[in-house]
Amino acid sequence: MLRPIKHLRSIRAKRFLSTCESYFPDEPKAPILKTSTIPGPKSEQLNNELGEIFDNRATYFVSDYYNSKGNYISDADGNYLLDVYAQISSIALGYNNPELIKTAKSDEMTNALINRPALACFPSTDYATILNEGILSAAPKGMNKVWTALSGSDANETAYKAAFMYHHTKRRNGDFSAEELESVMNNELPGASDMVILSFDKGFHGRLFGSLSTTRSKAIHKLDIPAFNWPKAPFPSLKYPLNEFEAENRQEEDKCLQEFESIIKSYNGKVAAMIIEPVQSEGGDNHATPYFFQQLRKITQDNDVLMIVDEVQTGVGASGKLWAHEHFDLPSPPDMVTFSKKFQAAGFYFSNPELQPNQPYRQFNTWCGDPSKALIAKTIYQEVVKHDLVNKTASIGNYLFSNLKSLAEKYPILNLRGENFGTFIAWDCKDANERGKLLLSLRNKGINIGGCGDYSIRLRPPLVFEQKHADIFLSALEDALKEL
Amino acid sequence: MLRPIKHLRSIRAKRFLSTCESYFPDEPKAPILKTSTIPGPKSEQLNNELGEIFDNRATYFVSDYYNSKGNYISDADGNYLLDVYAQISSIALGYNNPELIKTAKSDEMTNALINRPALACFPSTDYATILNEGILSAAPKGMNKVWTALSGSDANETAYKAAFMYHHTKRRNGDFSAEELESVMNNELPGASDMVILSFDKGFHGRLFGSLSTTRSKAIHKLDIPAFNWPKAPFPSLKYPLNEFEAENRQEEDKCLQEFESIIKSYNGKVAAMIIEPVQSEGGDNHATPYFFQQLRKITQDNDVLMIVDEVQTGVGASGKLWAHEHFDLPSPPDMVTFSKKFQAAGFYFSNPELQPNQPYRQFNTWCGDPSKALIAKTIYQEVVKHDLVNKTASIGNYLFSNLKSLAEKYPILNLRGENFGTFIAWDCKDANERGKLLLSLRNKGINIGGCGDYSIRLRPPLVFEQKHADIFLSALEDALKEL
Repeated sequence: MLRPIKHLRSIRAKRFLSTCESYFPDEPKAPILKTSTIPGPKSEQLNNELGEIFDNRATYFVSDYYNSKGNYISDADGNYLLDVYAQISSIALGYNNPELIKTAKSDEMTNALINRPALACFPSTDYATILNEGILSAAPKGMNKVWTALSGSDANETAYKAAFMYHHTKRRNGDFSAEELESVMNNELPGASDMVILSFDKGFHGRLFGSLSTTRSKAIHKLDIPAFNWPKAPFPSLKYPLNEFEAENRQEEDKCLQEFESIIKSYNGKVAAMIIEPVQSEGGDNHATPYFFQQLRKITQDNDVLMIVDEVQTGVGASGKLWAHEHFDLPSPPDMVTFSKKFQAAGFYFSNPELQPNQPYRQFNTWCGDPSKALIAKTIYQEVVKHDLVNKTASIGNYLFSNLKSLAEKYPILNLRGENFGTFIAWDCKDANERGKLLLSLRNKGINIGGCGDYSIRLRPPLVFEQKHADIFLSALEDALKEL
Repeated sequence: MLRPIKHLRSIRAKRFLSTCESYFPDEPKAPILKTSTIPGPKSEQLNNELGEIFDNRATYFVSDYYNSKGNYISDADGNYLLDVYAQISSIALGYNNPELIKTAKSDEMTNALINRPALACFPSTDYATILNEGILSAAPKGMNKVWTALSGSDANETAYKAAFMYHHTKRRNGDFSAEELESVMNNELPGASDMVILSFDKGFHGRLFGSLSTTRSKAIHKLDIPAFNWPKAPFPSLKYPLNEFEAENRQEEDKCLQEFESIIKSYNGKVAAMIIEPVQSEGGDNHATPYFFQQLRKITQDNDVLMIVDEVQTGVGASGKLWAHEHFDLPSPPDMVTFSKKFQAAGFYFSNPELQPNQPYRQFNTWCGDPSKALIAKTIYQEVVKHDLVNKTASIGNYLFSNLKSLAEKYPILNLRGENFGTFIAWDCKDANERGKLLLSLRNKGINIGGCGDYSIRLRPPLVFEQKHADIFLSALEDALKEL
């Protein structure tokens, strides 16, 4: 007699399972705290051991990834924290996602890992298929080609290289001159380039030498490192709430646009490309309106400047669109869009075939990407589609935002931003000190969360973050704010 | 009656199994050629498909890694080529090595792949152990710390950053000044650095913006890309055979050393570091003697210039030592040693704790390496030790070299080099045209082999390359040379 009832129950239960529940039937129901502060003693001990051989001074806590599950990151002491930071915006489908386990255990993955190809010389029989079914299926509108890389910095730098080669090739009108061939070996003009990449104040685009020259987030990212003398343009500083400051914000954006165009003109054709994040993430979650981005696109086209949109942090769903720049309804697609983080695979999308250099071995290196990461990206993309995770993230983002807005009426949640922008939400604290206190207090309440900019807090949960998680987060936040 | 005989046979057979035979009992006995030229039609077709979405113009052939085995790379048409190029010097243990399959299928690997950590903030409970048992067990003498990265370029650039921060911190004597904090946001002095990295003519250190500024291999690697105005020193051009030109070569090296020191002096304390390959690989397999490297070490120490040895291509056994610079008996270890390729994991070793920046978040990025690659490196290192592959490579290298020396008496094998340097062997062809013919002819005889420099051919087989493979290679080479 019991069997049919059980059966019915399980059907009923399944009918109401959320994506997260179906992925992670044994995800914790709430944070589990085993130690009074985090990091606990085991975390401290392991971190000290690590410090003997590796720079460990930025460690929050030592994580136990084997026991982490879904939205919960576990640590060496057996604590389980609700993770709204997700490896600096990287974990797309939650920890230990069963579909990713399948991919990791597949023969395709084994093959990719142990026979790692030099892709540009010896591409694998399945690389085109892996790209087509994954990274390229996910390509932003108007983009049908990709160059794969290994990190966000690498993606941006290869995009910069494509931009420089594109412009010089167009202007050269034929073969390299003897003078170019000789001078470049001494890092000198005319073989080397005096063109520049224009980036924005407070933008972050990576930490290698070219990308760091375009990064303008914080001094500590840049100090003591040689930099190219490349220019920066002002990024609008919007006032919140947006609907109360429409006129002022428009004026601010127009001022920035004017300055942007004036810098380009002053460089007299030497700005090869500009790079911009849809939301300046490391720099403090600074937003601009669709109008601003639309105008940028017009100005770049009018002035033959390539537009690179850096979606390393904003890409792959968190904004409530697959690519955050889809929010802007640009008059034409960007020239290149870079990605990494949530895809693990990195690189840049493009469509204009002339952004592929005019000769082989110009955009080239040993690996040229990594099929094992492309396989991960493929599964992530397919799961995102299958479970409609972008729309779900848009809707949970709205839920989060409206609740944060209510909290902001009672507590110092300043300049709340990211409305209708999925879970890509942030706010300002009074100052860095208060931000530090709030982050620490949240951690000790079982919420793993990160800051950005000088005094902001950012939300970066995975795409399997649901209402029950939002409720836990909001309640912990309210407690922490009360205690401030 | 049959069973005991079988049993005996199998025991006897096992007694004589080489490392390669025990890894790959079904490795082909010789190249298998299914198409009259390589790439064959299926390779061409797949490459055309790939070309729709990815830069495919450097493709040799499309490889079937599933069917590749040991020293033999298979292609889309079912050809099997003896691979003495090994993904540009990268495949350490042969294709589809069973021990790497175990590692790839392990739970540790699954965990590392699907829960990819931001290592500097949320290191995993097992990262110290993975490093200690793998990458750090393999550390060159005098090195007990590591910074992990994602590629050779990345490894070199993070080493450069460490060098710049080290010098400026030492000179600053306290906190950053307000002027430094402000100017660096505009990429200007004094916050940005005007120190330089000194590299050598024909050296190759990568293709990102900082590493490319130190790369001096070929114009095509550098054209149209902005470069730092960093200096280069001459690299000795040795005459072969070495024993016939000892005096001339010493004179040449002394001239280069003088110029090296004079550049350093002329920069008046602004050379933060020099970088050098034990053998300039991309630049044409250019060797210098231990004397040259010993003197460099003395000069760098006398002048407070850090010495970075780039072992990206030379490292992990191919030279007949685990690290090629061990051939040089340096008066003291280098300050940093970079690695990638054969380890898949990349990064740099160091020992001086001051090469770890004075504050966290200075040497920092999202991934800070990749535990999945560190796991691969660990297995590679452990297998190298278990099977004594470095000494075996030293001995097979000697066998190869002496046979090539004999061939050089009859055929145009010019400036044969790499004696007593494992399988890290190269020679010059008459010119680029003849080199191209020889490489192609060898490919069509079932040997996958690569060039370097303007007219050189380099050997880069995996560490499981044995006498029988050497014999196949030598015989094919003789045939190809006859036909020239």
